[in-house]
Amino acid sequence: MPQVDHNRMANAIRGLSMDAVEKAKSGHPGLPMGAADIATVLFTQFLKFDAAAPEWPDRDRFVLSAGHGSMLLYSLLHLTGSSEMTIDQLKNFRQLGSLTPGHPEHGHTKGVETTTGPLGQGIATAVGMAVAEKMLAAEFGKKIVDHHTYVIASDGDLMEGISQEAIALAGHWKLNKLIVLYDDNGISIDGPTSLSDSVDQVKRFKACGWAAEKIDGHDQAAIAAAITRAQKSNKPTLIACRTTIGFGAPHKAGTNKVHGEALGADELKAAKENLGISLEPFSVPDDVLKAWREAGHRGAAARQEWEGRLGELGSRKRAEFERRLRHERPPALAKAFKTYKKELLEKPMTAATRKSSEAVIEVIAGAMPMEFLAGSADLTGSNNNKAKLATAFSAKTPKGRFIHYGIRELGMCAAMNGIFLHGGFAPNGATFLVFTDYARPAMRLAALMGAGVVYVMTHDSIGLGEDGPTHQPVEHLSALRAIPNMRVFRPCDAVEVAECWELALNRIDGPTVLALTRQNLPQLRTSVNENPCQYGAYELVAAEGEAKATLFASGSEVEMAVAAQKQLAERGIPTRVVSVPSLELLLAQPKERRDAIIGNAPVKVAIEAAVRWGWDAVIGQDGEFIGMHSFGASAPLNKIFPHFGITAEAAVNAVLKRVT
Amino acid sequence: MPQVDHNRMANAIRGLSMDAVEKAKSGHPGLPMGAADIATVLFTQFLKFDAAAPEWPDRDRFVLSAGHGSMLLYSLLHLTGSSEMTIDQLKNFRQLGSLTPGHPEHGHTKGVETTTGPLGQGIATAVGMAVAEKMLAAEFGKKIVDHHTYVIASDGDLMEGISQEAIALAGHWKLNKLIVLYDDNGISIDGPTSLSDSVDQVKRFKACGWAAEKIDGHDQAAIAAAITRAQKSNKPTLIACRTTIGFGAPHKAGTNKVHGEALGADELKAAKENLGISLEPFSVPDDVLKAWREAGHRGAAARQEWEGRLGELGSRKRAEFERRLRHERPPALAKAFKTYKKELLEKPMTAATRKSSEAVIEVIAGAMPMEFLAGSADLTGSNNNKAKLATAFSAKTPKGRFIHYGIRELGMCAAMNGIFLHGGFAPNGATFLVFTDYARPAMRLAALMGAGVVYVMTHDSIGLGEDGPTHQPVEHLSALRAIPNMRVFRPCDAVEVAECWELALNRIDGPTVLALTRQNLPQLRTSVNENPCQYGAYELVAAEGEAKATLFASGSEVEMAVAAQKQLAERGIPTRVVSVPSLELLLAQPKERRDAIIGNAPVKVAIEAAVRWGWDAVIGQDGEFIGMHSFGASAPLNKIFPHFGITAEAAVNAVLKRVT
Repeated sequence: MPQVDHNRMANAIRGLSMDAVEKAKSGHPGLPMGAADIATVLFTQFLKFDAAAPEWPDRDRFVLSAGHGSMLLYSLLHLTGSSEMTIDQLKNFRQLGSLTPGHPEHGHTKGVETTTGPLGQGIATAVGMAVAEKMLAAEFGKKIVDHHTYVIASDGDLMEGISQEAIALAGHWKLNKLIVLYDDNGISIDGPTSLSDSVDQVKRFKACGWAAEKIDGHDQAAIAAAITRAQKSNKPTLIACRTTIGFGAPHKAGTNKVHGEALGADELKAAKENLGISLEPFSVPDDVLKAWREAGHRGAAARQEWEGRLGELGSRKRAEFERRLRHERPPALAKAFKTYKKELLEKPMTAATRKSSEAVIEVIAGAMPMEFLAGSADLTGSNNNKAKLATAFSAKTPKGRFIHYGIRELGMCAAMNGIFLHGGFAPNGATFLVFTDYARPAMRLAALMGAGVVYVMTHDSIGLGEDGPTHQPVEHLSALRAIPNMRVFRPCDAVEVAECWELALNRIDGPTVLALTRQNLPQLRTSVNENPCQYGAYELVAAEGEAKATLFASGSEVEMAVAAQKQLAERGIPTRVVSVPSLELLLAQPKERRDAIIGNAPVKVAIEAAVRWGWDAVIGQDGEFIGMHSFGASAPLNKIFPHFGITAEAAVNAVLKRVT
Repeated sequence: MPQVDHNRMANAIRGLSMDAVEKAKSGHPGLPMGAADIATVLFTQFLKFDAAAPEWPDRDRFVLSAGHGSMLLYSLLHLTGSSEMTIDQLKNFRQLGSLTPGHPEHGHTKGVETTTGPLGQGIATAVGMAVAEKMLAAEFGKKIVDHHTYVIASDGDLMEGISQEAIALAGHWKLNKLIVLYDDNGISIDGPTSLSDSVDQVKRFKACGWAAEKIDGHDQAAIAAAITRAQKSNKPTLIACRTTIGFGAPHKAGTNKVHGEALGADELKAAKENLGISLEPFSVPDDVLKAWREAGHRGAAARQEWEGRLGELGSRKRAEFERRLRHERPPALAKAFKTYKKELLEKPMTAATRKSSEAVIEVIAGAMPMEFLAGSADLTGSNNNKAKLATAFSAKTPKGRFIHYGIRELGMCAAMNGIFLHGGFAPNGATFLVFTDYARPAMRLAALMGAGVVYVMTHDSIGLGEDGPTHQPVEHLSALRAIPNMRVFRPCDAVEVAECWELALNRIDGPTVLALTRQNLPQLRTSVNENPCQYGAYELVAAEGEAKATLFASGSEVEMAVAAQKQLAERGIPTRVVSVPSLELLLAQPKERRDAIIGNAPVKVAIEAAVRWGWDAVIGQDGEFIGMHSFGASAPLNKIFPHFGITAEAAVNAVLKRVT
């Protein structure tokens, strides 16, 4: 317990938050003021951290799921002594280039464990962090990994559907070191939450296997007692803290007027007088600041002791632990890929790319069995991303390296973000490509944060057949390619599958989608000397003579392009085939390379069982596109491609009608 | 109660479902076999419908949320006497062009109330249907509108996050005529649901304001008693029916082996023997079929009585009711738009398009106050889609025509689908454009079903400023444009806002996104004689002389294009400005019109504060694009466009460097 009065310490948060929002004329003062007591108790008495070492692997994780209350976090970082979070940064809240953007951004600001703002995702990402902790603790021992994950969540976080997926998983896995402090202020932007909600959250969480209780969120003793109980629970815990939004603002507290805008000069002054704090903007009394700084270094001794224990781990295990946290791949991986690709040349594989991916997964899991962490949203047998030896992760089997996420695509992808951000694992998750629609908010955050996760998205076109248009992706490749920093690979055969997997695993600064087929494909590649997928596209079949046409295709349609090329060659029309495993990666190449790959054959045809959107950048406005112009249909595989006119013959005809 | 034994009737469903899946060698027999008892009790004793009049407005709605169990629904349609659902259709299950696709498709097959398959959405869409029923009943009286909405939901439906959004809303609104029969079979594709779930659903639903109980789902008396209780409840009801998946299959029942694949000849034979039904495929005993057909016409008398009551309603009110259900707009609407647009010319409006949209909403609500049904996911004051006179919808105020959906974008959009499908309303829903990511699964279903809903998506670019990259859409315009049958409008001023709203409301066969700004924009249009937005794009400013360049822009960037055009004209470079409120609609125009709008100026520049993805189709691979190449940043409006180089000056320079 700090020497300075709790209220004065909490009021430092309130003062800084009010001032920063006022200066920016934009932001959310209500949550920082309302949750200041909760945060003060947590950061001064419970949270294990050392402000001098924000990357300490065994620190407690703190996630502000209600990211709009960012000034709470920035105030805490400043007060506890983050070296970069100066008072000037607080004064530059929400300004261009500051470390204090409107919502906390991981990778942009030290001490921000994950990017939050899109509601519900913080709590779901925290579930992933708690999973990673549980797994690493079981593997490296509690002397090395033994920390909590704390979340401050808002009404909005708990209204978003993703919260249900997250809490169901946390309850099922008994993630007892996950503690959610719910800032239950009863106010959303539109007004009282009673406008749209009457859920009893304590009962709801209990129904999902959590410990849950209600407390007064301004009673420091009650907060401390509840956190102490939570730490002893064998379940994850929800502490619903009844608070007053904008606590201290005499006229606006407890209303939506203090949710998302500055208090205004008069109310700010009145609030400060009411709280008994200085009217001087951005001022914190010396003794209060000192007490906060002490709180920020409470963990220094524990951290040093931990460093000692890490030293005792033995150099090999220590190196392994540190390598894992750096997301560095083991040397065995590249070697295993090389060997495997050579084997493929000797024994070509005709298989669905989801099946050749399964073979690759055996190779990867062999090279990094404990860090390769696959999972599926209840389609394990269809997605084929479970290594044979991997067992199911559960409360009782924390060394299991396959996660049954249930039918929860968004919760899965948010948890994967948390697993990656925690460190120690290369997570991948699987479902049907069409269901990336459900997962998109977390996939976008992965791209924004630069999280190196892999999505195994199978059944990647109308080729899935009978399940019909609800399950057939048509626009998804395009919609995913449009996301900045997202990589989408759609390999055409077993060799490309291996190459794309290797690129995906080595991409630790952004997410990768692997779009894989349900249906069988032949092996087309006859050389494995380099990995041409790294350029997004490459010439798979050269023209015999000066090319009159180039056929571009990805995935399952490359086979059609190759067949069409052969027919055209027989008719004396020299044609190239360019395999395009990643359209957006091709377009991102330096102009010279891009132009060389695209080439200047007068006729350009693209074949992809998806919408044209984006392909004009390769084939031009007048290029021929053979693909989808509508949603799909329920039919067996052998009927469906001809029905939509996606065939080698269509490609041949498209060239013939253009070639002069 | 039918004269024929319940079990024989239920077994007819089981037999047909097994046979159809077996013949297709694909499908899900487990659910139809397991839920046959529930469905038989519901359809023979409770469901108010008349197979001869599947469009009867006051029929009970039945939603098979677990759409993979489609053979349950197809069997029921056949057995109860749907005229088009012949035995041949069942034999063509999952075949090209059949009425029996893999998952039920609304608009494709009569009697399918909504398209299901993407899990969780059926129950959320049913919430919208129940809302529409409650509203219409309050408006037209219980003599005209008084029906239930029944749902059969699976484990997967309740695992998906959207289910939480749906049940929270249903509980809050006390939608007592919504009854969910949960097929609690404890099995998902991966195996027992205990692999990934331990939620107590009865407790969870109770926490959300529902009545909920557990029963034996094979006990017909228990099912009937529970439905009877549910009909009397003042809350929505969950009936958790414990069932055996694949009931009757001697070896595979109760396991995931019967979930998603054909039984196989041996098991099928054994199951039929076990159930005591004919081995002849697709056969139903005459007396059983007769009893089912009688059940299918149980409602005929009630429907005739209802027709009588409709006649007594008075011709004016009856015409209004029928017009509303046809989604036909009142004549007053077109007139109101015409008047309003003329007024705009006289009194131009400088305003954010979200604000000029608010003005349009007043016009629309004036013309159709009871059918224009707006709502917002807790951003009402920011989205500006609430008409002044509209009051909040709630359990006690069913005539309220503004829905506070809470922070539930996906639940909102799924409910909108249900409201539209029920008939009687023109629903629109609002949030920030970036959060279409959360809503995408329901938006896709709207496009697939052809539901004429409108999405009011504000804060449509980096122009939202300080909230930063988590809230700034960059790829969303492109990702939405890629969806077949989705219309995306991004109007540039108050006139285009009115025009796009008019097109959106008159589009009753598909959804429309209106992307609107946070920031102010001038009024650029000086003529309102026709509605050029209907072509997706049009020449807003003509060149003085033969155009050397064309500037294409949408929304807030049209202002920049107009400013650049002026600067270029002053430098003697004749330049056109083409406003592109809907890029994909422009591209869908007949070639002649499209070419005329795009024109053949040698330099083509597009300006849009979003990614380039898709624009090459207009400006060509070598066209200049001024827009976003990354995620955004947190900064005030006046800093952010220059920071990312999106300015009139950039457009001028792009032209200058190309013009020779």
